[in-house]
Amino acid sequence: MTRRARGGRAARAAANAAAKPKREPYIKRNIPEYSILGDADLAILEHNADTLLEEVGINIEDDPESIEYFVKAGATADGSRVRFPRGMCREIVKKSAPAEFTQYARNPENNVQIGGKNTVLVPAYGPPFVYSKEGGRRYANIEDFRNFVKLAYMSPSIHHSGGTICEPVDLPVNKRHFDMNYSHIKYSDKAMMGSVTAPERALDTIDMMKIVHGEDFVNENCVLVNLINANSPMTYDSVMLGALKHYARAGQCAMPSPFVVSGAMSPVTAAGVAAQSLAEGLVGMALTQLVRPGAPVIYGNFVTSMSMQSGAPTFGTPEASSIINMGAALARRLGVPFRSAGGFNGSKIPDAQAGYESANSLQTGLMAGVNFMLHTAGWLEGGLAMGYEKFIMDADQAGMMAVFAKGVDMSENGQAMSAIAEVGPGKHFLGCEHTQKNFKTAFYQSNVSDNNSFEQWVEDGSLSAEDRAEKAYKTMLAEYTLPELDPEIDAKLLAYMEERKASFPDSNIS
Amino acid sequence: MTRRARGGRAARAAANAAAKPKREPYIKRNIPEYSILGDADLAILEHNADTLLEEVGINIEDDPESIEYFVKAGATADGSRVRFPRGMCREIVKKSAPAEFTQYARNPENNVQIGGKNTVLVPAYGPPFVYSKEGGRRYANIEDFRNFVKLAYMSPSIHHSGGTICEPVDLPVNKRHFDMNYSHIKYSDKAMMGSVTAPERALDTIDMMKIVHGEDFVNENCVLVNLINANSPMTYDSVMLGALKHYARAGQCAMPSPFVVSGAMSPVTAAGVAAQSLAEGLVGMALTQLVRPGAPVIYGNFVTSMSMQSGAPTFGTPEASSIINMGAALARRLGVPFRSAGGFNGSKIPDAQAGYESANSLQTGLMAGVNFMLHTAGWLEGGLAMGYEKFIMDADQAGMMAVFAKGVDMSENGQAMSAIAEVGPGKHFLGCEHTQKNFKTAFYQSNVSDNNSFEQWVEDGSLSAEDRAEKAYKTMLAEYTLPELDPEIDAKLLAYMEERKASFPDSNIS
Repeated sequence: MTRRARGGRAARAAANAAAKPKREPYIKRNIPEYSILGDADLAILEHNADTLLEEVGINIEDDPESIEYFVKAGATADGSRVRFPRGMCREIVKKSAPAEFTQYARNPENNVQIGGKNTVLVPAYGPPFVYSKEGGRRYANIEDFRNFVKLAYMSPSIHHSGGTICEPVDLPVNKRHFDMNYSHIKYSDKAMMGSVTAPERALDTIDMMKIVHGEDFVNENCVLVNLINANSPMTYDSVMLGALKHYARAGQCAMPSPFVVSGAMSPVTAAGVAAQSLAEGLVGMALTQLVRPGAPVIYGNFVTSMSMQSGAPTFGTPEASSIINMGAALARRLGVPFRSAGGFNGSKIPDAQAGYESANSLQTGLMAGVNFMLHTAGWLEGGLAMGYEKFIMDADQAGMMAVFAKGVDMSENGQAMSAIAEVGPGKHFLGCEHTQKNFKTAFYQSNVSDNNSFEQWVEDGSLSAEDRAEKAYKTMLAEYTLPELDPEIDAKLLAYMEERKASFPDSNIS
Repeated sequence: MTRRARGGRAARAAANAAAKPKREPYIKRNIPEYSILGDADLAILEHNADTLLEEVGINIEDDPESIEYFVKAGATADGSRVRFPRGMCREIVKKSAPAEFTQYARNPENNVQIGGKNTVLVPAYGPPFVYSKEGGRRYANIEDFRNFVKLAYMSPSIHHSGGTICEPVDLPVNKRHFDMNYSHIKYSDKAMMGSVTAPERALDTIDMMKIVHGEDFVNENCVLVNLINANSPMTYDSVMLGALKHYARAGQCAMPSPFVVSGAMSPVTAAGVAAQSLAEGLVGMALTQLVRPGAPVIYGNFVTSMSMQSGAPTFGTPEASSIINMGAALARRLGVPFRSAGGFNGSKIPDAQAGYESANSLQTGLMAGVNFMLHTAGWLEGGLAMGYEKFIMDADQAGMMAVFAKGVDMSENGQAMSAIAEVGPGKHFLGCEHTQKNFKTAFYQSNVSDNNSFEQWVEDGSLSAEDRAEKAYKTMLAEYTLPELDPEIDAKLLAYMEERKASFPDSNIS
């Protein structure tokens, strides 16, 4: 008798493992995209974006090189104000920007396909604080950074390691990008984002990726996606465009993203925000193609509404959902991948507000057809804090989104006609053959939700979702094991960082 | 000088009141319906439903009258098992069921339009328990019932008073419908649902509505929507069909609703659930049209998935969202209004789980095009508890749903081109004319979300969403004032109830 045939706990565990579906490295959507506007209205928004580019123009500050690129392509410059003939930016983007591309991870199983019917779920980006039930809210440090890289690495439905997953404020501003990049490489093997806080830091990041992937590979393949924020309204600066150009020249993906709090950086009305955002995005995207035709690029949107009482940005709101929906449709018409949505919320803690707002944003983003969903997991307090428990909750939602995006199984097994005939009126389906055959993969299993009886829940300690998520992240961090990394590459990375760090003094100015 | 011209606080209050948009009695959706399946797949589900009705049939228990209706229309009966020729039920429904109808409220301003592009948001239905932060979880009583009627009455985005908003378990089972009906009439003037727990209680409910609206009006107009659950799989009983027939005869709306926990009352696969539910729904809907052609009817779906670990029903899950989406599309093809979705969740408390799950269900339901959204507000613990704080949170979401459903304002003001031209690159929009003109109605104002700074939030007491919702419901109940009710009608209702209650003994058996 083999060990398997003898049965028992080990055999059941093996059978369970075998029945588990293989982890999907990204979501391949098998559901249609939902657009709240039809083609005629979307064409009006495109026309408006062109009108803004032609008549108002974009300020390109302290960056004569970028202005020259545009002027050579047909734009006119009046100091830093650049105006673009109708359709110019759109044509440049349509001509050479890829509709879909692969971002390579250091583990090929984690390569992600960006664009088209694919959705890649990415951790939150940028919070200077962390929040946990145990520690409350405090400044983030490099240990937190590593912890969140580990949690993203271990979360099957988070597809990407992200970038500035939180700000390690214990490290000097002008050198922390080395440690952030190294942490993504060392503690995860998923795809990652590069530093954009200064043009030279973009070059450092590309150098480190060349150590990991080899120089030739990086020259010809996308291994970095990089967040380039516009200074909305209608402005780019030399820091962001400097990073954009370095990445585009290296064949790496820039993601120009209008950063809009409606009412502050844009009009308060959704159609106005959509046209302005498109105008800003077109300029950033066009520059990538002027620098290197065919370089991968993503159209980004970061949009929030505003509390007209306090002026504070608001999240997970219907206004933001509408704008994101339009942005996704406009990106499809342009033929480029789209980045937006995420687990946005304004709550200071992972409570019901955080839940409602995050779910609203995640759901509407998924249905809109977002391709690169930055800020999917961890976001709290309008992006100021990265939440440990919140990360677990959002990662759980990410798993549910993948199930919904799979669409409906219309196979004979999915239609289940023989099961209904077999069971018949008034009986239950628990023991029938169809249920037995399908139950292991029939329903998504949450690790946050409690659906037990009230009595059982009380017996289990009357825990909130936050309590359960706290247990989950602590268990994950305790069980974490390093992914394999070639010791030679590791040594080279460390030597590179040491040398570069020693070559200029620490600074916390910018 | 008039009082207004003198300015000051009163004038500003008047100006604010004038600027406030009028309350909408229901949502008129100006966004497309989202369907995850195309017509070919939906036709397969319809074919499957017909196959089930033809080959498996439906059990109609202890109700020879209903069986006779079907046999006369062409069905065959083998004992309680009734089988239907392919297409029979569909044709009966398509022939006479209205695609859209008005349900009249005792205040005409609160009449709701059910079907088509309209969505009516309705409180939760049926919980035997209530939950509040202050009181924890306990059995509901008639005072709770009145409280929730009052809260629904005061919530601008909840369009309906609902039915068994919670079970007043302090009253005898066989008489509590009098008090529930009276509470809806007395403490609210929104449209309401009728009792279905026994056929004679349906008649009592119709009698009470005749006192309120007049007999002739009730005979010709819909003043009640009534929830008729199927005993899934593929079974109806005489209690539910008895109530259905009474309501249909009186021209009142029945809402036959398959009640499905996937894996228990149906197969575990979504396409199987959808076909079975349609088969069950078609039979209930067809009976209403056989009893009274043209009677208003709604196709209902109550669908949850199941935890395959514990067997507990689960809520706000992607599987349920998929099934609801299909149900809505099938109802549109049939030409009847659709009821489903709501603030479903399995949480025992209004925490992040409650928030995520409720938002998932509400959002996907809205986009699917649900017409009558039962269980929109208050639902906790898989429907076993009605939450005071949860009601406030969900009612807030209802307001956001209305904004999203309005779609995008593509007017000149909405496009805001002149505002962008006026402000120009690098400036802010806070003070511009367009913002000044639009800001009062630009963004939905939540009464639950806190978007203040962390520091301000701490100063305000570090409140959770639950804490804020607690304050809100207490304030509302303290500020509640009775809507006008003709004293003569009130007296007649009280006399009717007294007489009817005295005519038979109390019972708590059923």
